[in-house]
Amino acid sequence: MQVTGNQIIANNTSKSGGNTFYATNPTTGEQMPTEFAEATADEIDQAVQKAEEAFVTYRKKSDHERADFLDKIGEEIMNLGDTLLERCHQETGLPLGRLTGERGRTVNQLKLFAELLRDGSWVDARIDTAVPDRQPLPKPDIRQMQIALGPVGIFGASNFPLAFSVAGGDTASALAAGCTVVVKGHPAHPGTSELVGQAIAQAVEASGMPAGTFSLVQGKSVEVGMGIVQHPLIKAVGFTGSFRGGKALFDAANQRDEPIPVYAEMGSINPVFVLPEALQQRSDEIAEGWVGSLTLGVGQFCTNPGVLITQKSDNSTQFLKTAEQSLNNVSTDAMLTEQISKAYQKGADQMERTDNVATVAKSKRADTATASEGYIFSTNAQNFLNQPNLSEEVFGPSSLHVAAQSKEEMLEVAKNLEGHLTATLHATDKDLEEYTDLVAILERKVGRLLVNGFPTGVEVCHSMVHGGPYPATTDSRTTSVGTLAIKRFTRPISYQNFPQNGLPTALKNDNPLRIFRLVNGKLTKELTS
Amino acid sequence: MQVTGNQIIANNTSKSGGNTFYATNPTTGEQMPTEFAEATADEIDQAVQKAEEAFVTYRKKSDHERADFLDKIGEEIMNLGDTLLERCHQETGLPLGRLTGERGRTVNQLKLFAELLRDGSWVDARIDTAVPDRQPLPKPDIRQMQIALGPVGIFGASNFPLAFSVAGGDTASALAAGCTVVVKGHPAHPGTSELVGQAIAQAVEASGMPAGTFSLVQGKSVEVGMGIVQHPLIKAVGFTGSFRGGKALFDAANQRDEPIPVYAEMGSINPVFVLPEALQQRSDEIAEGWVGSLTLGVGQFCTNPGVLITQKSDNSTQFLKTAEQSLNNVSTDAMLTEQISKAYQKGADQMERTDNVATVAKSKRADTATASEGYIFSTNAQNFLNQPNLSEEVFGPSSLHVAAQSKEEMLEVAKNLEGHLTATLHATDKDLEEYTDLVAILERKVGRLLVNGFPTGVEVCHSMVHGGPYPATTDSRTTSVGTLAIKRFTRPISYQNFPQNGLPTALKNDNPLRIFRLVNGKLTKELTS
Repeated sequence: MQVTGNQIIANNTSKSGGNTFYATNPTTGEQMPTEFAEATADEIDQAVQKAEEAFVTYRKKSDHERADFLDKIGEEIMNLGDTLLERCHQETGLPLGRLTGERGRTVNQLKLFAELLRDGSWVDARIDTAVPDRQPLPKPDIRQMQIALGPVGIFGASNFPLAFSVAGGDTASALAAGCTVVVKGHPAHPGTSELVGQAIAQAVEASGMPAGTFSLVQGKSVEVGMGIVQHPLIKAVGFTGSFRGGKALFDAANQRDEPIPVYAEMGSINPVFVLPEALQQRSDEIAEGWVGSLTLGVGQFCTNPGVLITQKSDNSTQFLKTAEQSLNNVSTDAMLTEQISKAYQKGADQMERTDNVATVAKSKRADTATASEGYIFSTNAQNFLNQPNLSEEVFGPSSLHVAAQSKEEMLEVAKNLEGHLTATLHATDKDLEEYTDLVAILERKVGRLLVNGFPTGVEVCHSMVHGGPYPATTDSRTTSVGTLAIKRFTRPISYQNFPQNGLPTALKNDNPLRIFRLVNGKLTKELTS
Repeated sequence: MQVTGNQIIANNTSKSGGNTFYATNPTTGEQMPTEFAEATADEIDQAVQKAEEAFVTYRKKSDHERADFLDKIGEEIMNLGDTLLERCHQETGLPLGRLTGERGRTVNQLKLFAELLRDGSWVDARIDTAVPDRQPLPKPDIRQMQIALGPVGIFGASNFPLAFSVAGGDTASALAAGCTVVVKGHPAHPGTSELVGQAIAQAVEASGMPAGTFSLVQGKSVEVGMGIVQHPLIKAVGFTGSFRGGKALFDAANQRDEPIPVYAEMGSINPVFVLPEALQQRSDEIAEGWVGSLTLGVGQFCTNPGVLITQKSDNSTQFLKTAEQSLNNVSTDAMLTEQISKAYQKGADQMERTDNVATVAKSKRADTATASEGYIFSTNAQNFLNQPNLSEEVFGPSSLHVAAQSKEEMLEVAKNLEGHLTATLHATDKDLEEYTDLVAILERKVGRLLVNGFPTGVEVCHSMVHGGPYPATTDSRTTSVGTLAIKRFTRPISYQNFPQNGLPTALKNDNPLRIFRLVNGKLTKELTS
C-alpha cells in the first residue's frame, strides 16, 4: 500500500480535479511530498450513486456477513503495519505510542460492532401476534425491527486520525447498521485517510461486498463536504469537529428538499466540579489529575476539561498552587495543524486579556513548529456568569479555574451551563449526599457524568454516551461512541399481516437468529406461534 | 365539568387575551356558544415556565408513580361521560359510535404506557462493570439509561379529537417519558380540548404531581403554536397535521438558538399495490375493501389509501367497475371543518381537471354543511410519473387508481414514491415470491408495510410504526403510535464510576426494579456485583 493522492470511488481510484493540496508535518512545518486532488462534484456524485447502488445489496447481507466484513477491515488496517503509523505520525505530530493505542481502539471498535451484529438483538425486534376474534375489531399481526437508513456521509476528524476518521466509530456503526458510506477524509491527514481507505477497499473486495459500499473523497474546501451533505441520495451524516463546521452541515441538511439527520459532535468545555470534602482530602491528587487531563494529547480532545469549579477556601488556594507547579513541569508538544495551533493561541491570548481573569500557570513548550504553551487561568463565579465568552471552548491545553463563594454560587454556575459532552464531580460520599441538587442539574446538561475521574478517555462499550445536549452535539438522542451509535443510522419499520416467507429473518416465528424479541410485550428468545 | 373558554395553566384557569374565537358545528354550519380566548404570549410563557419548574420534580417520580398518574388521566376522561362525547360530536361532526371507540383507544393508549412504565425495561439500562486491572488502562464502571428531555410542546390534531389531541398518544408518551407537557388544542374542537384538559388537571392534582406538569393553551393563530415551539425552555415538539404546518414548526425549531427535535406526522398517500394473482382471485373483495377504507371517517385519516396501483388487464377493468358501484352506494358525511371541506373540494376539482385523469366514480353526499362527495379517479402510470401533483395528498374520501402496463412500470411507480406512512400489497403467496423487489423498494419508502389489508386502522401496540421517511414525517427514526413513541422524548446519559448510592434506581447493582438490562453485553434481569 502506498499514498497516491487519489480518491477511492467504489474500489476504483480517481484523480480528475485540478485543485490540489498537500499535507504538512506539524512538527517540522514542512510540506509533505504527495499531491492530493480535491474531489470534483462529479467524483462526489459518482461515489454517492455507487453507494446507493451498493446499498440495495449491502443492506440485505446478513448480520453475520457484515460482522465478518467489519473484522476484515480491522485485519486489513493491522496489515498496513508501520506504514500507517509512520505516515500518521508525520501528518499529525501525534506520538507513535498514542497512535498505536488509537489503532488498537479503532480495530476494537470494529470488533465490538461485529460482536453486536453476531449477537443480533440490536435490531430491537418486536412481535405482536394477531387476535382474529378480538372485539370490536380483529387484532392484526404486527412486527417491527430497525432497518438501515441508506447511504451516509461521514466526516473524518482532525484529532483522531484513526478512531474518528475513515474507519472510525462513525463508519463502523454505519456499516454495521447496513448503510453504505462515503467518507470525506480530514485534509490534515490525507495520506493516513487514503491508507485506511485502501484497507477498507481491500476488505470490501475480500468479503464480497458491492464495490460502492465504501468510498473516500478528499478535499480542503467546504464544497467537498457540502457536496456530500446536499446530495439527495445521502440519508444521514456523521461529523466530529468544530461548532462552526458541524452547525453549517446541520443547517445545510435541514434546508435540503428532504431534510436528513446530522450527528455532529462539536465539542464542549466539560466542567469539573470539585466539592468541598474531596477538595479538603485530595487537593493535590485532583490538581495533578486535572493538569494531566487538560494537557493530555496537547489538550486536543473533545472531552478536555476546559473549566474547573471549586468553592473558595484555603484548600482551593493550595489546590491552585499544586496545579501551577504541576503545569510548570509539563512540556507541551506539537499541535495537529498550524491552524489549530493559531486558533488555540488566539483563544489563550484572549483569555489572558479578559478582565478579572488571572493567568495562574503556563507550561513549557516543545521546540516544534506548532507547539503552544499550556495554560491555567482563574476567575470568580460572578465574572464567569457575566462573561459568556469564558464558556467557549478553547481547543487545546488550557483550562479555567472558577472560584465560587458558596454552594449556591456553584449551583448557579451549573444552571447556567449550556450542553456539554461531560461533567465531572470530585466528591466524597458525604459530598454527593449534600450535592444531589448539583447532580440533578448536571444530568440535564451533559451526556456523561463522572465521579472522581477525568473526562478524557472515552471507553468504547455498550454503556458509553459520547454526546450531549446542544451545542455539544446537534442530536442529544444519540452517541458517537459505543454500540448505541448504531441507532443513528437506522429507523423502525412495521410489517403487518405478512406471511412467514415474506418476513425478514429476525421477525420469523421460529426465531432463526435466536435473538431477544419483545413478543406481546415480553422480552424473550422464545419462538412465536 | 363544563366548557368555559379558559386556558388551563398549571391547574389554574386563565383568560386574559382579547382575541377570541368560537367552535363551529360542521354538520349545521352554526357557531357554538362558548367564547374562547387565544392564549397571550404571557400565558404561553407562564405555561412553559411552570412546565420547566414542574419538570424538576416530575422527572424524578418513579415509573410506578407516573403509571398511576396515566391511569388516573384515563379514569378522569371516562368520568367526563357523555358531556365529552356530545361536545366532541357537536364540534367535529364525527358520529358518537366512532367517538366512543376513539375514547376507548385514548384510554387504552394511556394504559399501554402505564404498563410499559410498570414493566420498567423501556429505559434501556446498560451496565459495563469496571476492570480495574485491565492493561494498559483500567476499565471504568459505566452505566447508561434513557432520561426525559424536558418540557415538550404537543399540538392537537383536527382528525382525532381525542386520540391525537390533548390526552392523545403524543401527550401519553411524553408524560410517560417523564416530560411535562404544554398542549396547544386544535381550534376546531376547543371545547373537547378543554374538557380533556380539565380531566388531566384533575389527575395531576389527585396524583400529587406538580401543577405545571400539564397546561393547555388554545388559539387559532399561528402565533400561539410558534410561541410554544420558539420558547427556549421547550425541548421537543409533537405534531400531527398538514405538511405546511409541520414543516413550518420543523423549520422554526431548527432556527432556534438551541435547535430541538420536532416530530411532525404530516400525512401521506399510502399507496396500495394490487398484484396480478390477487387481482385475479379477489378483485371484488379488494375493490370493496378499498372503497370502505378510502371513505372511512370521510377519508380523514393520515393513512387513507390515496392511490392504488394495478397492472392493466381484464381483471383491473372488472376491479374498477366493482369499485365504482361500491362508491356509488356510499353516502359521505360531514367533514371536520369548513376549511378541510373546502380544501378537499379544491383538491378533487383539480384532480378532475387534470389531463389524462378520468373520474371513475362519485359517492352520494349527506345533506350537511361540510359534506363532500367521495371520488375515485383513474390514470395511467406514465401520467402519474410525469405529473408530481398527482402524488400530493388530497385529504378526504378520494383515491386515484393508477394503471401500469407491466411489472416494470409498477416498480417504476414504487421507485418514484416519496416517503409515506404506509404501503399495502394485495398479494397471493406466489405474487409475493415474484415481487420481492417491490417489497425491497417499499421498505425504503414507508414506516409500515401491510399485506392483504388496508392502511386505515392503526393498532396501538409495541410493534406499530406510525411514521415514515420525509415528507410523511420530519423524523423517520420514530413513531407517533405504539410504545416506541416514548423514545421521542428521551435521550441516553452515562454515569461513570458512580457510587451505588448516587445511581438512579434502574442502574443499581441489585436491580431493584427487576428490569432487563444489558450487563457487559448480555441482556439479563440478574443482579450485578
